[in-house]
Amino acid sequence: MNWLFDFNYPILKYVSMKLWQKSTEVNKSIEKFTVGKDREMDMLLAEFDVLGSLAHTQMLESIGLLETSELNILHKELKNIYKEIQKGQFTIEDGVEDVHSQVELILTRRLGDVGKKIHSGRSRNDQVLLDLKLYIRDQIRVTVENVKTLFELLISLSEKHKNDLLPGYTHLQIAMPSSFGLWFGAYAESLADDLNMMLAAYKIANKNPLGSAAGYGSSFPLNRQMTTDLLGFESLNYNVVYAQMGRGKTEKNVAAAMSSIASTLGRLAMDVCLYMNQNFGFITFPDELTTGSSIMPHKKNPDVFELIRARCNRIQSLPNEISLVTANLPSGYHRDLQIIKENFLPAFEDLNNCLQIAAYMLGQIKVKSNLLKDDKYKYLFSVEVVNQMVLDGTPFRDAYKQVGALIEENKFKAPETINHTHEGSIGNLMNEEITASFDNIFDQFHFELVEQAYEKLVK
Amino acid sequence: MNWLFDFNYPILKYVSMKLWQKSTEVNKSIEKFTVGKDREMDMLLAEFDVLGSLAHTQMLESIGLLETSELNILHKELKNIYKEIQKGQFTIEDGVEDVHSQVELILTRRLGDVGKKIHSGRSRNDQVLLDLKLYIRDQIRVTVENVKTLFELLISLSEKHKNDLLPGYTHLQIAMPSSFGLWFGAYAESLADDLNMMLAAYKIANKNPLGSAAGYGSSFPLNRQMTTDLLGFESLNYNVVYAQMGRGKTEKNVAAAMSSIASTLGRLAMDVCLYMNQNFGFITFPDELTTGSSIMPHKKNPDVFELIRARCNRIQSLPNEISLVTANLPSGYHRDLQIIKENFLPAFEDLNNCLQIAAYMLGQIKVKSNLLKDDKYKYLFSVEVVNQMVLDGTPFRDAYKQVGALIEENKFKAPETINHTHEGSIGNLMNEEITASFDNIFDQFHFELVEQAYEKLVK
Amino acid sequence: MNWLFDFNYPILKYVSMKLWQKSTEVNKSIEKFTVGKDREMDMLLAEFDVLGSLAHTQMLESIGLLETSELNILHKELKNIYKEIQKGQFTIEDGVEDVHSQVELILTRRLGDVGKKIHSGRSRNDQVLLDLKLYIRDQIRVTVENVKTLFELLISLSEKHKNDLLPGYTHLQIAMPSSFGLWFGAYAESLADDLNMMLAAYKIANKNPLGSAAGYGSSFPLNRQMTTDLLGFESLNYNVVYAQMGRGKTEKNVAAAMSSIASTLGRLAMDVCLYMNQNFGFITFPDELTTGSSIMPHKKNPDVFELIRARCNRIQSLPNEISLVTANLPSGYHRDLQIIKENFLPAFEDLNNCLQIAAYMLGQIKVKSNLLKDDKYKYLFSVEVVNQMVLDGTPFRDAYKQVGALIEENKFKAPETINHTHEGSIGNLMNEEITASFDNIFDQFHFELVEQAYEKLVK
Amino acid sequence: MNWLFDFNYPILKYVSMKLWQKSTEVNKSIEKFTVGKDREMDMLLAEFDVLGSLAHTQMLESIGLLETSELNILHKELKNIYKEIQKGQFTIEDGVEDVHSQVELILTRRLGDVGKKIHSGRSRNDQVLLDLKLYIRDQIRVTVENVKTLFELLISLSEKHKNDLLPGYTHLQIAMPSSFGLWFGAYAESLADDLNMMLAAYKIANKNPLGSAAGYGSSFPLNRQMTTDLLGFESLNYNVVYAQMGRGKTEKNVAAAMSSIASTLGRLAMDVCLYMNQNFGFITFPDELTTGSSIMPHKKNPDVFELIRARCNRIQSLPNEISLVTANLPSGYHRDLQIIKENFLPAFEDLNNCLQIAAYMLGQIKVKSNLLKDDKYKYLFSVEVVNQMVLDGTPFRDAYKQVGALIEENKFKAPETINHTHEGSIGNLMNEEITASFDNIFDQFHFELVEQAYEKLVK
Repeated sequence: MNWLFDFNYPILKYVSMKLWQKSTEVNKSIEKFTVGKDREMDMLLAEFDVLGSLAHTQMLESIGLLETSELNILHKELKNIYKEIQKGQFTIEDGVEDVHSQVELILTRRLGDVGKKIHSGRSRNDQVLLDLKLYIRDQIRVTVENVKTLFELLISLSEKHKNDLLPGYTHLQIAMPSSFGLWFGAYAESLADDLNMMLAAYKIANKNPLGSAAGYGSSFPLNRQMTTDLLGFESLNYNVVYAQMGRGKTEKNVAAAMSSIASTLGRLAMDVCLYMNQNFGFITFPDELTTGSSIMPHKKNPDVFELIRARCNRIQSLPNEISLVTANLPSGYHRDLQIIKENFLPAFEDLNNCLQIAAYMLGQIKVKSNLLKDDKYKYLFSVEVVNQMVLDGTPFRDAYKQVGALIEENKFKAPETINHTHEGSIGNLMNEEITASFDNIFDQFHFELVEQAYEKLVK
Repeated sequence: MNWLFDFNYPILKYVSMKLWQKSTEVNKSIEKFTVGKDREMDMLLAEFDVLGSLAHTQMLESIGLLETSELNILHKELKNIYKEIQKGQFTIEDGVEDVHSQVELILTRRLGDVGKKIHSGRSRNDQVLLDLKLYIRDQIRVTVENVKTLFELLISLSEKHKNDLLPGYTHLQIAMPSSFGLWFGAYAESLADDLNMMLAAYKIANKNPLGSAAGYGSSFPLNRQMTTDLLGFESLNYNVVYAQMGRGKTEKNVAAAMSSIASTLGRLAMDVCLYMNQNFGFITFPDELTTGSSIMPHKKNPDVFELIRARCNRIQSLPNEISLVTANLPSGYHRDLQIIKENFLPAFEDLNNCLQIAAYMLGQIKVKSNLLKDDKYKYLFSVEVVNQMVLDGTPFRDAYKQVGALIEENKFKAPETINHTHEGSIGNLMNEEITASFDNIFDQFHFELVEQAYEKLVK
Repeated sequence: MNWLFDFNYPILKYVSMKLWQKSTEVNKSIEKFTVGKDREMDMLLAEFDVLGSLAHTQMLESIGLLETSELNILHKELKNIYKEIQKGQFTIEDGVEDVHSQVELILTRRLGDVGKKIHSGRSRNDQVLLDLKLYIRDQIRVTVENVKTLFELLISLSEKHKNDLLPGYTHLQIAMPSSFGLWFGAYAESLADDLNMMLAAYKIANKNPLGSAAGYGSSFPLNRQMTTDLLGFESLNYNVVYAQMGRGKTEKNVAAAMSSIASTLGRLAMDVCLYMNQNFGFITFPDELTTGSSIMPHKKNPDVFELIRARCNRIQSLPNEISLVTANLPSGYHRDLQIIKENFLPAFEDLNNCLQIAAYMLGQIKVKSNLLKDDKYKYLFSVEVVNQMVLDGTPFRDAYKQVGALIEENKFKAPETINHTHEGSIGNLMNEEITASFDNIFDQFHFELVEQAYEKLVK
Repeated sequence: MNWLFDFNYPILKYVSMKLWQKSTEVNKSIEKFTVGKDREMDMLLAEFDVLGSLAHTQMLESIGLLETSELNILHKELKNIYKEIQKGQFTIEDGVEDVHSQVELILTRRLGDVGKKIHSGRSRNDQVLLDLKLYIRDQIRVTVENVKTLFELLISLSEKHKNDLLPGYTHLQIAMPSSFGLWFGAYAESLADDLNMMLAAYKIANKNPLGSAAGYGSSFPLNRQMTTDLLGFESLNYNVVYAQMGRGKTEKNVAAAMSSIASTLGRLAMDVCLYMNQNFGFITFPDELTTGSSIMPHKKNPDVFELIRARCNRIQSLPNEISLVTANLPSGYHRDLQIIKENFLPAFEDLNNCLQIAAYMLGQIKVKSNLLKDDKYKYLFSVEVVNQMVLDGTPFRDAYKQVGALIEENKFKAPETINHTHEGSIGNLMNEEITASFDNIFDQFHFELVEQAYEKLVK
């Protein structure tokens, strides 16, 4: 009953040739071209493939397509494979084209024909859809946790440096006083907003496609709600044609959410590179975190931040790459979708590396104090002075003229203190509210529900 | 006290030159280049600029920067201007570079110096940020309503045609039976998922930036929560540096959400073009909705769907365009952000036109019945037959062999009926659940809160 | 015989309804949606449409499809229309959907039925292909001439400032001495290289598609070489299916070439913004070329360069937009291609505006002298000192150590002069060779051939 | 004298620590993050790195910075390494961060201190610039040769099938007769045009950046023309600041040229997928070249062409990715540029695989004969009939009415033959002219000049 819905399954070498007598062996170079990087990519999906099979077989048993005894045998071995994967003992062998085939091959070797039964009532189409969704859920969790770490660091840096003033620029021209408190806090709040997009993408990913088979369902009385519950999905992709359409679409929306985080992080990296430049000189990092020059003692290259910036820019190009691959394809499965994996799956690692190393670096940032004492920044304060005169009763135009005259006569002096009090300004950072806003979104992911489901499944 | 925080305000012709004696007139070609399409774009923002000023002035009065009598005069005239805009009686005059200047100019002409007071305590930076957010909120509402209309039509078409079978393709090769019920329903469910992204973008947009001034706040005791409430925002962009960072970022995320809808709609349009092709011949539209040829009676060109497809592809390029403009810009305002408006603002109209005309067209679609009776589709059913034999007790391998033999001897006959019953399959479309899922997201926008706020503001 | 090959011609209002009796009037909203911005865009193509008709009719006469007397009448009137277009007296009337229809309508009004004969033996498909190619050729000429102007200015600035030193940065960190001579010259050479891409795109555009009709040629004995010569094309798109495929492809490659120029200009703009920043302070522009602030005398915002930068980034997004619209479309005409015009045609104006205003601004740039005298730049010279000691006979390791020690003891002194002599270095800019290289590519465009052809055609 | 210009050289483990006493060991995780995939990528550059060193050292000797005896020793060993690389015996060891370091390390191990001398007078910046340009030149040659093979196959298929008619579609609607001769020939001509872009990109790449050091040249009397000649470059990047700017820019323009080829190939693949669809059924491939289904005998999935299509779409996203990484970076080296390698270098292999497998597949294509005999295509010929009547003397309107009446009464019969004779039409494919045009561009690459230079260099 195996392969029953898998209308797209190329002939694999290890399959008994008797079954498909008319088949000719797939040409070698064709095979190499079509497999591409799939085996490498599929290693990332292995543990999720097994989780999917655990749920799928349990459902098959419930509708009578597997004996209970068969289920027990299969579950025991699937759990073994799951552990092997987690220990790094799993590989996709030469000549086996993907992870689904490899898992089935192992089962068949160890258990005989019952091993093939795991494929009943599903196709590789919905199987890979499922694996991708489980992988995406997992990687979103990792990403969101890394975002949380960086967020909390930024908030604590903002609090720590709330009294360290910084020149504020518009048009890259000196404009008004800012502060490191504002600067760190701004990126924290930006990350909080980015989580909105990731939560939306998570909701799209967190729906069960299993049972859609090759995209048109099947005549077996599958219980899709059951696998939905077993795998801890919030809901299912109801319509089976839509379930298939979710391939590419899910990746694109997740990539858009990654792109939002990446643009926050990329901008932060640009600021850091600029602030480390000697003409600015606002911040430094310990020598061991920068790359130096063999000859110039002043050289402390911000390579890490340049690479964060570049990687984040590349992540920002990912949604577009996916759009290009999927644009104008009619509905129904196309092999094109396989190619999306190559840059999409590793993008999570890229982004997570960037988040982690950014936190690692920023944990050791040194901020220059009393920056605004430098005479070149004094005009940052001209508005403060005018404002103060106005609040003290001088009509605005008079105040403006007097300050203008002082500036022109080069007699203008910056005030010793500034007094910004409104919500979100230098003196009133509202980091608590920003944190509450972050936590509110974070909690809506409910990562614990997935964890609980998995615990039951592999216990 | 005017212009107080507006460090970026070019010298406008109508401003009394006495105030800025050192200024030289901005070179004409410079002015033309820098203004660009701003005046055209700003017409889209006009009514929102006035709404913003109504809230801002009310707040100014509450903190003593406007007299109550001044507020009353200003409010009365701002409401007049609001009505003029809605009646199409508002224009941005030659030599006035943007909508903010135009509104202020009108007020000054009609009310004298008090007109200039509306600019106190804000900068054009936060003003345009605000206008964009109000415009975006409004356009998202229109978009989501158009999505709803199309969604409901698709669901009703799905129900109407649930028994009309359709060939299902994978790899563009005939694969398994599908149905128009599935096909229409799939796009409906896709739109429901797209709304997740739009809701996230809406949440990012639905926060008040007003009071961030030039991106660094101010020394005035502004009450930002008050304008947040007056304008019906869910919350505020707390950190003023982040509020400024939201420019470009908001547009990018909204564009990503538009891109998600556009990819659903674009794919639907591709299917329609294919299904109208004579080799497929699955659907038709009344003659008056297609463009014909002057000579060939068979020609019914699907121009509308080709243009939907193309426009939707272009919308999918928009997030990338915004990324390119903003990538690698350090924090703080840059004039670059102005350019985003040119393709972003009109994209809403493009997308809404596509949604509306798609609904208009699909409302008149004619679906060909009994498609699968055509002999070329009979192999769609081979799996059905095998399955049925299996469920009737024949071992799978025997069933498979018998069906294979029938096919090879060209004796295979497709069954008269198919019986797909699981969730989301041909016989069990679950359109109610899909509708509930759509409505659940729709309700989270709470567009009524904005409406209520505006009613109070302009009453 | 009119419309003979135009299988895509929607029914136009002004056409006698008798001919197409079965036609129903195209629904208004459909028409509005399908026409879109075409009438606006087509104004850019009007003069080229007439040039194409002048050549096409001359060819029709040569193969006997027009009487010589008819040709004379048509040519006289087409030349009138050509002049009207150049004088700005041409409009596309309401209800006329494109420029081709408008020209034909005018001819028919003024000349009667003979006016309709211009459409014989062609389709709107090859007609718009032709118009686009003629427009592109013309706009490439304008662009290349603007590039030449900017190039020559940059070379002259390079020569003028060859002795003005500038800090050279790597990783945005102070690295080695550079010069304004190098800086200006680098952008000049970059433009020279960009012209390679534009020349390639020009070669692709400079081939005649006329005669390909709807993309499949025709049974008329058209003389395509004749129109090729009359319109000054270098060659023709031979294969008629390929001629049609050139739509979208030509635009994409031209956009890629524009993108190359845009990336040069965008980077130059970024440098300018940075160098105008007060922390750098390398260059200034006269007050009237910058936008100031109403209150801060130090503020000289580089709006023009910010907008150049942003516009250039947007131009860099254009090839991708075209790829997205055309990806995965099978061969043969699709209405989708119309949408490309909307952002592609105006991109020339955008790029040319940027080139012109950049030249205008740079013509007035003021360069700060003796920059490197500032103590913070002294370490730029450490390598120079080591090198000199080596060339004077000190072993490298000794030299390195001695200089290192001086730096550490804070006794290092920068030398008064530097001596870079190799090709392309500070002391040997090779601007003549760069200019020769530019001119060599420029000459290969042979714009004069087009001019000569047009002169004959409209004389 | 080693490392003299390499201001960006991080501290490598194998370097004697005495030299850089102040350095602290670079943090491990920093190192892992910064090295990224560089070691993997650099394997592609290894042979070119050695070729560069062969030329560089010869030049150093000519200006007295190497003894002749040192040169001889170095050259002998560099040639050994070159052979080892070609035999696959070269690896980049753990802890060695890039290919440049590895080559130098091997030399130093084998030859002692003289090994380090190869780095004199250059920086890793110009060294990697050089390696990339040599790699690009080589890969462009491979690509262009693969394009040539595919081109010639397409031309021969066009000739072979010039009498096999095919329905021509516009708007995906049946339009006019086409032929396989036209179809194959169109893609051949498209490839010829694509070569224009590749030639332009080649010209940009084929210029020597060596001697630009860290982007600001040096005080050594380098002879850059000499290395230009030794490495077979057409010319040099004169201005050293521009030479550095070429990084990223070269890749972008090469990627744009690849994108042009990819769009031709991607569209061909889309056509193939459509034509293999059973509703079209125009072409087939031998079973062993398609992937089948385990159960459906009719299933011949065009996986290869789907993957070509997807890979080609991804290649089309590459220029944009590079634009995103480089946009808004000021001039001067940034570490960001390293990231471009990760997707750019392997793109050549992707494209070449696609070109090769497309040729392999198309070499075995089977074309269905007498397609147009099918009654559904008869209206393709309506225009032919009208035309013929016109050429036989019937006035157009009468001819049109008569044919229209026949169609309406369902009495229309398609003619047995069609007679298209003009340039580029069914009966006059002009494949010779297209081939001449292809060869003309091909010859301008002058790949033999590079080969000749390399032969001298490694002889």
